[in-house]
Amino acid sequence: MITIAIDAMGGDTAPLAEVSGAIQAVQEYGVKILLVGSEERIREELRKHSSSRLPMEIVPAREVISMQDAISQAVRKKKDSSLHVAARLVRDGKADALVSAGNTGACMAISKLILGALPQVDRPAIAAVMPTARNRPVVLVDVGANVDCKPNHLVQFALMGEIFSRTVLGNPSPRVGLLSIGEEEMKGNELTREVLVQLKNAPFQFVGNVEGRDIFRGEVDVVVCDGFTGNVALKSSEGVTMIMTKLLREDLSRYWTSRLGAWLARPAFRNFKRRFDYSEYGGAPLLGIKGVSIVCHGSSPANAIKNAIRVARDCCNYHVNEKIETEIGEAQKLLFPASS
Amino acid sequence: MITIAIDAMGGDTAPLAEVSGAIQAVQEYGVKILLVGSEERIREELRKHSSSRLPMEIVPAREVISMQDAISQAVRKKKDSSLHVAARLVRDGKADALVSAGNTGACMAISKLILGALPQVDRPAIAAVMPTARNRPVVLVDVGANVDCKPNHLVQFALMGEIFSRTVLGNPSPRVGLLSIGEEEMKGNELTREVLVQLKNAPFQFVGNVEGRDIFRGEVDVVVCDGFTGNVALKSSEGVTMIMTKLLREDLSRYWTSRLGAWLARPAFRNFKRRFDYSEYGGAPLLGIKGVSIVCHGSSPANAIKNAIRVARDCCNYHVNEKIETEIGEAQKLLFPASS
Repeated sequence: MITIAIDAMGGDTAPLAEVSGAIQAVQEYGVKILLVGSEERIREELRKHSSSRLPMEIVPAREVISMQDAISQAVRKKKDSSLHVAARLVRDGKADALVSAGNTGACMAISKLILGALPQVDRPAIAAVMPTARNRPVVLVDVGANVDCKPNHLVQFALMGEIFSRTVLGNPSPRVGLLSIGEEEMKGNELTREVLVQLKNAPFQFVGNVEGRDIFRGEVDVVVCDGFTGNVALKSSEGVTMIMTKLLREDLSRYWTSRLGAWLARPAFRNFKRRFDYSEYGGAPLLGIKGVSIVCHGSSPANAIKNAIRVARDCCNYHVNEKIETEIGEAQKLLFPASS
Repeated sequence: MITIAIDAMGGDTAPLAEVSGAIQAVQEYGVKILLVGSEERIREELRKHSSSRLPMEIVPAREVISMQDAISQAVRKKKDSSLHVAARLVRDGKADALVSAGNTGACMAISKLILGALPQVDRPAIAAVMPTARNRPVVLVDVGANVDCKPNHLVQFALMGEIFSRTVLGNPSPRVGLLSIGEEEMKGNELTREVLVQLKNAPFQFVGNVEGRDIFRGEVDVVVCDGFTGNVALKSSEGVTMIMTKLLREDLSRYWTSRLGAWLARPAFRNFKRRFDYSEYGGAPLLGIKGVSIVCHGSSPANAIKNAIRVARDCCNYHVNEKIETEIGEAQKLLFPASS
């Protein structure tokens, strides 16, 4: 049985969403869960559910890394944090994967420090899974693990993103695009122009440059970029989503006719919300790490935690790491024959 | 009277939107318009309106640059294009400003080639004006004119964006942020970390790093970045807007109750659409060019052309270029005392 360690103290409502999401996951996905954090608070949360006969255990951790903690400090000094303890469970083979809704930077740093990168991978990367117009999710990689990148880093991000899309998301032949500022080959910055040349020889369906607006069209399955650009693209999109929702809500509540209209249309709004709900996709995998590490948004509700656990399980079941090692090894020989 | 040259052949529906927007602008803003392009097609369009006594003239141009044209080719070979002719009218003092909804890259290249940069400006930049949650627009600069930038380029973008926000958008004291991937000072890439240090001494309200989602919050008035990052942020945001609108429309039309609800709520949707309408802000000024050059979206309706003409007029009336020259000169002395 796949065992997943949950950083139960990470998210904004921890351990509420974590415990509730974990219970749902245990029931739906047949995994075993280790809830890592304050024994007292987790137990208190568990008492609200009938969970005594489920395959769940508490692993105590005395410290908590907050969103405000400086990452380098937290990584070095809070060695008994729920994140550290959860990562050590994976390192020591007591868990197969780690899920956290805590401080993303800390989760990434601790995963890299305690678990380490896969031998073939120069730079692990965060992959964000997002909704598109065609109801098939797109993987944007990297969204923040690596700000200044060399071309071969982006080639590795592409390979890892493609494997994730193919195995966990079930796309038989994912289409991969390079995030740039125009479709033409000469468009882009120094980095993307170099990467474009290399990706043409990659062993997958490479469609060339794509633009920011193509991320959400659903015509590509994987979009590759450096972590700075990806982070800006991801957060700009989240920003627009938030203000559109806010402005529309304000406008709908202004007149009684609109309020009545919105009430009549509520199944449509519910469906829309579900289709556009990032939490359905369940957190962002940190690709290229030994073991599996999934980072969730701090505001993740139980449903998002549950889905992140499903993604963690699938990464284990589909042997994503083994595939990354083998396929990156083969691709390096193909792309850089001289150096290997 | 301010005279504005319109590239009447640029947009997707040219010269329809151009002629109609120009007529509205002449009536509302008291400007004189030179419509540049195919005399026959512009005249045909003018006949649909009663425009004979308005201060408008046709300036013939035989060629048209299309969205498909390779920019370098178009710039060098189509010298009688409506864009070339319009830019020469500004260079020769026959017009004060140029407005085009044509090929953005060509518009930028031709403006730079024919009009040239202001003496103090190393790199002209495109500023996008966008809606925010607080109903006060934000200026994002650069959104595509300069992909690979040095720190002092971003400092100049900030200065020009701040002047535009202060004069044309009427913010008495614009707040300027640097687009990065976290608020903390050490967050960012090599470029932004260097720029951050320099902007701290800039002669305006600098709020430090901002993230992608802050662009739309309405808490900063100017967001500065290199043209690659800005282009990705702008187009990702447009992409999300498009798919949210599409998905919501699909969901609302699914059940008769939702359709009725949407019908009842239509004043709210109209208001929402107006508040979120990029065309209200009227095109993106190319800051740092001699003369004034405003680039509009290819799909600009007449209203967007009209608003772009208003922005062009305001740039002239408020002496944006003179301010850029003076203030960049002074800021350079302050920021880089050794080199000046």
